[in-house]
Amino acid sequence: MRIAVLGTGMVGRAHAARLLELGHNVTIGTRDVTGTLLQKEKDSMGNLAFSKWHNGNNLINLATFAEAAKSAEIIFNALKGDVAVSVLKSIETEINEKILVDISNPLDFSNGMPPTLFISNTDSLGEEIQKALPKVKVVKAFNTLNALLQVNPKQLAEGDHTLFISGNDETAKLTIKEIAQSYGWSKIVDLGDITTARGTEMYLPLWLRLWGKLQVSNFNIKVVIDEKIN
Amino acid sequence: MRIAVLGTGMVGRAHAARLLELGHNVTIGTRDVTGTLLQKEKDSMGNLAFSKWHNGNNLINLATFAEAAKSAEIIFNALKGDVAVSVLKSIETEINEKILVDISNPLDFSNGMPPTLFISNTDSLGEEIQKALPKVKVVKAFNTLNALLQVNPKQLAEGDHTLFISGNDETAKLTIKEIAQSYGWSKIVDLGDITTARGTEMYLPLWLRLWGKLQVSNFNIKVVIDEKIN
Repeated sequence: MRIAVLGTGMVGRAHAARLLELGHNVTIGTRDVTGTLLQKEKDSMGNLAFSKWHNGNNLINLATFAEAAKSAEIIFNALKGDVAVSVLKSIETEINEKILVDISNPLDFSNGMPPTLFISNTDSLGEEIQKALPKVKVVKAFNTLNALLQVNPKQLAEGDHTLFISGNDETAKLTIKEIAQSYGWSKIVDLGDITTARGTEMYLPLWLRLWGKLQVSNFNIKVVIDEKIN
Repeated sequence: MRIAVLGTGMVGRAHAARLLELGHNVTIGTRDVTGTLLQKEKDSMGNLAFSKWHNGNNLINLATFAEAAKSAEIIFNALKGDVAVSVLKSIETEINEKILVDISNPLDFSNGMPPTLFISNTDSLGEEIQKALPKVKVVKAFNTLNALLQVNPKQLAEGDHTLFISGNDETAKLTIKEIAQSYGWSKIVDLGDITTARGTEMYLPLWLRLWGKLQVSNFNIKVVIDEKIN
């Protein structure tokens, strides 16, 4: 499929590389193509400069947010949470009625670490995106774990841990479930409509404290249910 | 040990009965002893009238909040979240410097189901209790799962799932860890100080949606970590 991944950070790169490996036609969308390619230093998160990463992944196209979204059948939102709604709204026409996989989290780093959430409890970023772009088929997914684990779940406990998805459109969720299965996911829990994104986004504060405790990000949670009734 | 359990609901009853079974001297604390014993109807959550339950568990003492706390070495807070701080503050002298196991969650049912949280993100109920009673050794624990599973973890997947604890006092956490182990817990993650209660309280929105999805409450999460590095 033709897939656009919006965002040049760790999460965007992980999905872009994995989707390419799985045979998809992948375009990364960025605000400023020239500027992104001119970056020579590691970014604020300590990731390799994009151009250096791209040299080793040159079958992945790079385009503006609008161009990437326009040419794609499915769009992955791997933007930082605080810019997600404004960027997506600016390319609403290009996204139109497509499936938008929302991986972003409403993390607020302004009060130090661990971050708090700038939307929570009675709302979620997934819902805000769905409200801002009502025609888009938003599927919240992959936002509860480390980027590399999102796209290669079998590297941990042979994949015996859980991925959550939320969204209003059943067909869109099935499509994303298939992509997740192609990544290696076997335990996928469809929580329900997009309001259930509150559950996975509000799990982040626990994830962050587990990260602080374990000192590694290669972990996840598994939903353990009574086998007798399931 | 002499243990007080504050609260006559499902959570308080579960801990009281289990602690008695394990050989402790247990007193349930309530606001109004006579009133509690006069209840003949099921409570608002559909639990058996307290007096009927107590008939079958008559080795458990019943006393006022203050009397129960005064005579105990360890106190379990199984009160509803919205009254927890005020009740505990009213018996601060009796609790004094003892260990307080805080099981309560800041659930707000005023906007319908699933409930939202009345404290979250930049604060937690565990922290509010610690701030209101600064001498008390608050240990947040057991608040992430169903009452019966809290006290009998081996009824699910032979106990292969996770209990989280938070608190500022290391010795108090060790004491509660031992009680949890006597319940059957083997996977206990000490997240850190009481501010980490934000993580477990904010997990509740995910728990509530999993409950809605699975239609049973006999489930939990297991933290899955890379065995090679742990």
